[in-house]
Amino acid sequence: MDQEILNSLIVKNESKIIYLIMDGLGGLPQQAGGKTELETAQTPNMDKLAVEGSLALLDPIGHGMTPGSGPAHLALFGYDPIKDNVGRGILSALGVDFPVTGKDVCARLNFCTLDADGNVTDRRAGRIASEINERLCQKLKDSITLSDGIEFFLKTESEHRALLVIRGEGLGGNINDTDSQQTGVPPLLAKGKDEPSKKTATYVNEFLAKVRDVLKDESPANFILARGFAKHEPLPTMEERYGIKCAAIAQYPMYRGLARLVGMDVLERPETYEAMAEQLKENYDAYDFFFVHFKKTDSYGEDGNFDAKVNVIEEVDKWVKGLESLNPDVLVITGDHSTPAIMKAHSWHPVPALLHCGNGLNRIDHTKSFGEDQCAQGGLGRMEMKNIILEALACAGRIQKFGA
Amino acid sequence: MDQEILNSLIVKNESKIIYLIMDGLGGLPQQAGGKTELETAQTPNMDKLAVEGSLALLDPIGHGMTPGSGPAHLALFGYDPIKDNVGRGILSALGVDFPVTGKDVCARLNFCTLDADGNVTDRRAGRIASEINERLCQKLKDSITLSDGIEFFLKTESEHRALLVIRGEGLGGNINDTDSQQTGVPPLLAKGKDEPSKKTATYVNEFLAKVRDVLKDESPANFILARGFAKHEPLPTMEERYGIKCAAIAQYPMYRGLARLVGMDVLERPETYEAMAEQLKENYDAYDFFFVHFKKTDSYGEDGNFDAKVNVIEEVDKWVKGLESLNPDVLVITGDHSTPAIMKAHSWHPVPALLHCGNGLNRIDHTKSFGEDQCAQGGLGRMEMKNIILEALACAGRIQKFGA
Repeated sequence: MDQEILNSLIVKNESKIIYLIMDGLGGLPQQAGGKTELETAQTPNMDKLAVEGSLALLDPIGHGMTPGSGPAHLALFGYDPIKDNVGRGILSALGVDFPVTGKDVCARLNFCTLDADGNVTDRRAGRIASEINERLCQKLKDSITLSDGIEFFLKTESEHRALLVIRGEGLGGNINDTDSQQTGVPPLLAKGKDEPSKKTATYVNEFLAKVRDVLKDESPANFILARGFAKHEPLPTMEERYGIKCAAIAQYPMYRGLARLVGMDVLERPETYEAMAEQLKENYDAYDFFFVHFKKTDSYGEDGNFDAKVNVIEEVDKWVKGLESLNPDVLVITGDHSTPAIMKAHSWHPVPALLHCGNGLNRIDHTKSFGEDQCAQGGLGRMEMKNIILEALACAGRIQKFGA
Repeated sequence: MDQEILNSLIVKNESKIIYLIMDGLGGLPQQAGGKTELETAQTPNMDKLAVEGSLALLDPIGHGMTPGSGPAHLALFGYDPIKDNVGRGILSALGVDFPVTGKDVCARLNFCTLDADGNVTDRRAGRIASEINERLCQKLKDSITLSDGIEFFLKTESEHRALLVIRGEGLGGNINDTDSQQTGVPPLLAKGKDEPSKKTATYVNEFLAKVRDVLKDESPANFILARGFAKHEPLPTMEERYGIKCAAIAQYPMYRGLARLVGMDVLERPETYEAMAEQLKENYDAYDFFFVHFKKTDSYGEDGNFDAKVNVIEEVDKWVKGLESLNPDVLVITGDHSTPAIMKAHSWHPVPALLHCGNGLNRIDHTKSFGEDQCAQGGLGRMEMKNIILEALACAGRIQKFGA
């Protein structure tokens, strides 16, 4: 929906919307004719909501498209997952809780090993321990200054991986990877694809030259490779787009960062699911919209652990029971994408979704439980993920009539 | 579908298409687990057509978007409900059967009350009786002449509401409301947002100044407020778009006007449903496409009268029985939008639709009755309302193959 038209239709009221997101929720059966993780799980609370509500299948990006976490979450929040997509460097920054600003170009680093001729012999420097990574980052920070007052930041992720941020006025992020993904060849120089990015590339190359000098006597990590350069282009906030004050309740940095990117207030990191429930209750009066994120469904999917993914879904189902007392006007339960355990990876399969309106304003379909096959028969049909927020806002009485 | 491509594919033949529209047909159950109005109604004739035909859910504008009657009908006729949307002033003109031309700028008027300082004290002039409104309109028509040969027309709607039309060459409709929606402040002047509209604004302000003088001794209605200025931008007709000669059978002015807007011949206003059936039979040979509009489903929905809406649907179902003898090549039964009785208003919920081909060229799905949940499982799926005309034209053999 065109933002200008939407702005003219959005109204504010006292309604509450809860978005309960199980990361990588969608799945596949272990054998032909079997049940998916969600269909296998005993979920009496979500099944009751399915009976009273409407089901759907959501396409995060489009048919056949497997989304990363960034675009999938943007689609959940109603943004365009392709046009508004966030670069890898930015996602890395979010993943280590780095507070990105509008002056930053971010990139993912690998410590690597160069031979005497300057050719890459190991793109991951033997997967050095994180402690060594930390020591090297500190050494670089202590030793290097860039010209023209340009700042840089380094932050260890884990093993050989780190974050690089170059901060300054007028920098662009259209820069090639310096990692050629090959060994036996030298690392590439940074080249900018436009004027602001050429400016950044100058400082990146200055930085790389100084790194080579500082690390020349280290082993095995005597250089770095950079990839995924990206500038942070600010997005309109959820509040600007939909007139809703939003809070995020999430344990993992990446999702906390994605929420911050669309202007949500990110509540203090909760240690447990109980703490997440407490945060929701304590902040219920202060916000219109709550993004509640459960990560482990995706983690176990990536591990290929079907049973553990089933168990997490059952745990979340018990958690859902606790929402009854709040009786939100609109409750959406879904995932950001599918992570079938048998694939050990994100997949393109559309994501099961449940829309329940405490105010009675959703259609009731004949579906009897929350699962992929029931969702394929759901009253909302198969839809683009980015539209589910419009269904939620409408059910919450927050979108006025278009035309007379 | 791109109009140029469509034009290259459209062919004419002897087929007949009937569009049976129950205004505001879509509904909601009265309580969780219950049935909608359409699902509650006993509709043996439409159920038989559902068994033989295909069902769908139609989105008039998009997910979460609640349509007015204007955009919803444009979508039914295959026009873009947003791009081709018709301004409020034009809809008002259609609603009082005013024959709008391409030189007209239309606006909705309220008679209002000003105090001695010229501030609005009552935006509706105490909701004066329609007879007073008529007398005042006549007085203004008798007393006012505009410069440069610009014409104006006034037509009473009801109570304090009337229609204003300014007619002249080269006028624009981008003009602010002179109603600030507040009391205790003076009415606003008209300002045009572009050159043609600035020209119109000059005549509107001349008109307002003269109205103030003519009504100065009236009470309580001593001035007018104008809103919803709109120019009539002619749309291509249905015949130009689809090569079909179209007739409209409708009782209410607004829908007769919308049909006229897309070039349909609007048959004489029928007093009863029997008269509508008669008109259809009498004109069956003379047209390719019939738009038959039943209003009361929407009226009772707006009243919050669930049972009365159910009764109207049952009446229309009996009417449908009469179509058997005509055996149209294509029969579409749907609504323009949803008006759930429990909401007493238009809503965003997708609209149940039935496509039946007397010539046997529609897919047959497993659905057994005409209702929202069955439509959610229908063979046509959930689709944009503006595309249903293409399905109908195709079933009628009126769209040729694209490409070789």
